[in-house]
Amino acid sequence: MQADLKSSKNSPLPMKFSPLVDRITGEGSDAWQIHYAARAAQERGENVILLSVGDPDLDTPIEVTEQAIAKLRAGDTHYTPASGRDTLRSAIAALHYSRSGQRVGVDNVIFLAGAQNALFTASLCLAGPGDEVIALEPLYPSYPAMLEVSGAHMVRVASSAARGFRLELADLEAAITTRTRAIFFATPNNPSGVVFSEADMLGIAQLAVRHSLWVVCDEVYAGLAPQGRVPSIAATLPEQVVTVSSLSKSHAMPGWRAGWMVGPKSLIAHAEALAMCMLFGLPGFVQEAAITALQVAPAAESRIREYCAKRRNLLIATLKDLPKLRFNAPDAGMFILIDVSATGLSGQNFARQLFAAEGVAVLDGGAFGASTQDFVRVCFATDETSLREACTRIRRFVNSLGTA
Amino acid sequence: MQADLKSSKNSPLPMKFSPLVDRITGEGSDAWQIHYAARAAQERGENVILLSVGDPDLDTPIEVTEQAIAKLRAGDTHYTPASGRDTLRSAIAALHYSRSGQRVGVDNVIFLAGAQNALFTASLCLAGPGDEVIALEPLYPSYPAMLEVSGAHMVRVASSAARGFRLELADLEAAITTRTRAIFFATPNNPSGVVFSEADMLGIAQLAVRHSLWVVCDEVYAGLAPQGRVPSIAATLPEQVVTVSSLSKSHAMPGWRAGWMVGPKSLIAHAEALAMCMLFGLPGFVQEAAITALQVAPAAESRIREYCAKRRNLLIATLKDLPKLRFNAPDAGMFILIDVSATGLSGQNFARQLFAAEGVAVLDGGAFGASTQDFVRVCFATDETSLREACTRIRRFVNSLGTA
Repeated sequence: MQADLKSSKNSPLPMKFSPLVDRITGEGSDAWQIHYAARAAQERGENVILLSVGDPDLDTPIEVTEQAIAKLRAGDTHYTPASGRDTLRSAIAALHYSRSGQRVGVDNVIFLAGAQNALFTASLCLAGPGDEVIALEPLYPSYPAMLEVSGAHMVRVASSAARGFRLELADLEAAITTRTRAIFFATPNNPSGVVFSEADMLGIAQLAVRHSLWVVCDEVYAGLAPQGRVPSIAATLPEQVVTVSSLSKSHAMPGWRAGWMVGPKSLIAHAEALAMCMLFGLPGFVQEAAITALQVAPAAESRIREYCAKRRNLLIATLKDLPKLRFNAPDAGMFILIDVSATGLSGQNFARQLFAAEGVAVLDGGAFGASTQDFVRVCFATDETSLREACTRIRRFVNSLGTA
Repeated sequence: MQADLKSSKNSPLPMKFSPLVDRITGEGSDAWQIHYAARAAQERGENVILLSVGDPDLDTPIEVTEQAIAKLRAGDTHYTPASGRDTLRSAIAALHYSRSGQRVGVDNVIFLAGAQNALFTASLCLAGPGDEVIALEPLYPSYPAMLEVSGAHMVRVASSAARGFRLELADLEAAITTRTRAIFFATPNNPSGVVFSEADMLGIAQLAVRHSLWVVCDEVYAGLAPQGRVPSIAATLPEQVVTVSSLSKSHAMPGWRAGWMVGPKSLIAHAEALAMCMLFGLPGFVQEAAITALQVAPAAESRIREYCAKRRNLLIATLKDLPKLRFNAPDAGMFILIDVSATGLSGQNFARQLFAAEGVAVLDGGAFGASTQDFVRVCFATDETSLREACTRIRRFVNSLGTA
């Protein structure tokens, strides 16, 4: 036995992992290198500005934080139900109704550890090996791993830059095969800021009915759209539409990991079984804080909308006269996609050179798909002084470039 | 189009789910019905006593709660790294070293949403369709779903009641095939309270080396074992052993969802990729509280050990003269398995009748596997008054039964 053990210690065996690990290696992860470098530089005290992530300098509403504190002090630190407390599920159901017009009960709602966790849960419950799942591009870099973790194949349907990244229904329809099980997309979109119109959504609904597809709507930025809502087909197709959202963006609560899924009861029952062996419940004090957040939702959301609108307008006003930068104003959200092709640089090289020259971190659009590789994504949801300074630096950088 | 949509609304399509949903339907879930019924009765104000779950009436240490509160007030509510903060990973590495003697760095550690989430992560990274994973019985009811979610087949190896649920290495060896990829087990065991000896662990190590197997040790109750540690082979086989634990039991923090996995760097890198698309980070204020918990670990753990030892001794002293109840004192933990076969009842019927007659909720041993179906699991980690009263009621119930 000692010989056995020694040989293992000295020359590690080629231990095998599951095939799943090869499907989650994060295609978009290179894009974050500039962000990580910038954050490290910032921690060293260097004069850098991060416009690379959607995490504004806003505090969680004080009522929400104080509710968590009260519950912590009251000992709300024991196990909770796997689907979340019914009081919270009921509050989520009410918000969902106000956004979508779909009346749902607690059995249509599960509370999960953020929208990412809810999308992951939907992915595992809706498709598997041999299936295809369509994802509309541009898409968030965690989508490929999150969708293929189930064993399904992710099929990208790209919106074109020339048409402002609006839905092109014919392209979506052409991508549907007999293996297609679901369509995943974000509205408002990250990074493009596009909100799908009523007509877009009805077109998707029609395809979903014709081909028996699940439609998973990532509405994590819905609270930042005008009136805090986006066109939804959840009420039209209650047995096929899954709505995912969270408090992260609308309530300045990204670190709380408070998200959810709304869908047919059958799906929620499966999601609960998965949540039981994946999470075994989530903190009670976070759930109680989330209930408070939902109670103050209108005020919290309009605070963030005003915050974003002001900064979006500032950025657009400051950069719009630079002929080498082209962009459309986003419908909603914290981001703007800027076409940098007139500078002669790819999105990746623009981001690298801008950071090297001026210490401003933006994200390579290529992280969101091939259709955005000539773009950079700029987050304008930061303090106004930093944003103004960043715009000055971006102007100086662009003006320093020769003609393409 | 309207016709399409209407037909869907009136007669829902037979929407398909992934094959995964059939693998997570919780075999042990019936066992919880008595617990849920008891909790509901308690909420209605009825005079019931719950000895059915391991969630003692203890508050999280005050320093821990106050640290979370300080961090909440300081705005630590933004995104965090997917693997957890390095300061926390480092503190976990130190605890792991003190328990196992294995020196590890931050790259060997990932912070996850509780031990359940860490076991789920290990399951997905280590095995897949066509593989077998051995689980040692008795086992926690969430194991089957958690292990089979990966697509692997779970093979149960039961310890025998006659031998006090100690490891029987020959049975384990006989269950290993060329498809076996991993062995999962809990030490201290829930529900039996058995701690595997040094010899047991070395026997497992030998099999792991010979057959290139992963060994996943669920040490969630390790802090409740004598000296807060159990025999470990992590230092012996650092490339094959995965250690999972949490603060839930040792620090009275079940609702915080603070757990981790320690293992080879290659595994932790895969786990991080999975955590990125499954969770996208965990609350910073929970992580900072967890660091505080790890700093006060010796005091917190000895508080819980004394709490459990006192109640275990009370229960044993009160029930030991009842000839129809047979049990071994557990090595560690919050539970005792009681053989009720001399009453003529199965564990399930004993639990049902005891609850109906006396309002005391215990768990059917069958929830943990066939080898414990003549047993009930009793949690003694509750307030002393309730425990004394529960013992009185159990005595009365047992004495009311005829001779088997």
